[in-house]
Amino acid sequence: MSTNRPEVRIAERAGFCYGVRLAIDKARQASEAGEEVTTLGQLVHNPGIKADLESRGIQTAELADQVEGGTLVVRAHGVPRDEMETLKSKGELQLIDATCTWVLQSQKAARELDEAGYTVCIIGHENHPEVRGVRSYAGEKHVVVDDMDRSTWERVPRTKKLGVLSQSTILPSKLEEFAAFCLKRCHDLRVVNTVCPVTLTRQDDSVKLAAEVDAMIV
Amino acid sequence: MSTNRPEVRIAERAGFCYGVRLAIDKARQASEAGEEVTTLGQLVHNPGIKADLESRGIQTAELADQVEGGTLVVRAHGVPRDEMETLKSKGELQLIDATCTWVLQSQKAARELDEAGYTVCIIGHENHPEVRGVRSYAGEKHVVVDDMDRSTWERVPRTKKLGVLSQSTILPSKLEEFAAFCLKRCHDLRVVNTVCPVTLTRQDDSVKLAAEVDAMIV
Repeated sequence: MSTNRPEVRIAERAGFCYGVRLAIDKARQASEAGEEVTTLGQLVHNPGIKADLESRGIQTAELADQVEGGTLVVRAHGVPRDEMETLKSKGELQLIDATCTWVLQSQKAARELDEAGYTVCIIGHENHPEVRGVRSYAGEKHVVVDDMDRSTWERVPRTKKLGVLSQSTILPSKLEEFAAFCLKRCHDLRVVNTVCPVTLTRQDDSVKLAAEVDAMIV
Repeated sequence: MSTNRPEVRIAERAGFCYGVRLAIDKARQASEAGEEVTTLGQLVHNPGIKADLESRGIQTAELADQVEGGTLVVRAHGVPRDEMETLKSKGELQLIDATCTWVLQSQKAARELDEAGYTVCIIGHENHPEVRGVRSYAGEKHVVVDDMDRSTWERVPRTKKLGVLSQSTILPSKLEEFAAFCLKRCHDLRVVNTVCPVTLTRQDDSVKLAAEVDAMIV
C-alpha cells in the first residue's frame, strides 16, 4: 500500500445476479400490492436486503410446512421436487416461483439425463439449496461430489453412462477437471454445462481485478 | 547397455488385435474354401502377413471400383458409408465385412450424435482409414481434429451441442484433454469414448515396459 488511504475499487460486474434481483423485486411488488409475503429461506444473504425486507413486513420461513396462507416466494435457488409439489398443493397459498431460469434448466437436465439412463453426477456443495433442488430431479442412482474435495469424486461409479451437471457457481476449470475424471469411468459421458453465465463473467472480472489490487474482499 | 548382447523383451500383450486377426482369418478361410479373395486395402501393414496372403493368391485392391467379382474382405478399419453401399450393390460380389465391432460402434455413435443434433468432433488422424469411415456417418457439420496438432482444435465451433468421438488408437489422456477443451465451447457435451479397450491395455503394457528397458521399437 503506497498511501494511508487505500483506493477502493469495485469489480466491473458486481452486485446480485438477475435471478436474485428478480426474486427481490417480486417479493417487494407483492408486498406493495398489499399481500402478506413470506420467502422460503433468505432471498440473499445480505444484511441490507434482509433489513429492507423485514421493514416491509416480509417474513422468512425455513420450511414449507411453516407457511399456511398468504403469498410465498420461492427464491432463485429453487426447492426440491417434493417441496414444490407440497407448496403447489396448498390451495390457500399464493405461490411466486422465482426459481432462476438457469436453475430450472439444471433441474430439467437432471431429469432428462436420469430418464435417458445416465447416472447423474452433480459437482458442487452437497448442502447448497440449489444442489438440494437439482438432485431431487436426478433419480435414485445420482451422486453429489464436492468441487473442492477430490476424495468425494470416488463416489462416481464405473458404469456405462455418466451424466454430469454442476452447481451454477463453481469454477469452470473444476467442471472440466471433473468431466475428464468421469470420462475414465464410463463409455458414454454427457456434460450439461450448468455453470451460470453471469457467474462466469463475474469470476473473470474478479480474477482481472485481483491481479491489480493489494487485497480483495469477495 | 551392460553387455554386448542386449536382452530382447516383448510387451505382455502384443501382436495384432482381435479385429485384425479376425479379418486375416476370414480372408484365409475364404481362400482355403476356393474363393477368389481380394482385400480392400492391406489388412495390416506387416510384411510377413502381406507375403503370406500373397502366397495364398489373396489380392489387394485400393478402391472398391477395382473389384468386380469374387470375394471381397472389408478390413477391420471399416470403409466410408457410400463405399459400403457401393460394395453391397454389387450383386456379383461376395462381401465379407470384417469391420471391427468397436469401429462399427463408433460409426453408429457418429450417426446417432448427428441425428440428435450434436456437431460431431472426431479426434484422430484425418486420413486414417478408420476416421474416413467414421466421419462418413457424422453428418455435414462434423469436424476432424488432430490429436497431435493442437492448432487444428480451433476447427471446433462454438455451438450448443458438441459430440466427441475418437479414433480407436489415440491416447486416452488426449481424449480427456480434448473433451475439456470442447466443454469450453458448448453447453451440452457428449463424449462417446471410442478408444479401443485392446489398445488401452497395450498402451499400459508399453508404458510399463518402456520404463524397464533402454530402447523400444513399436
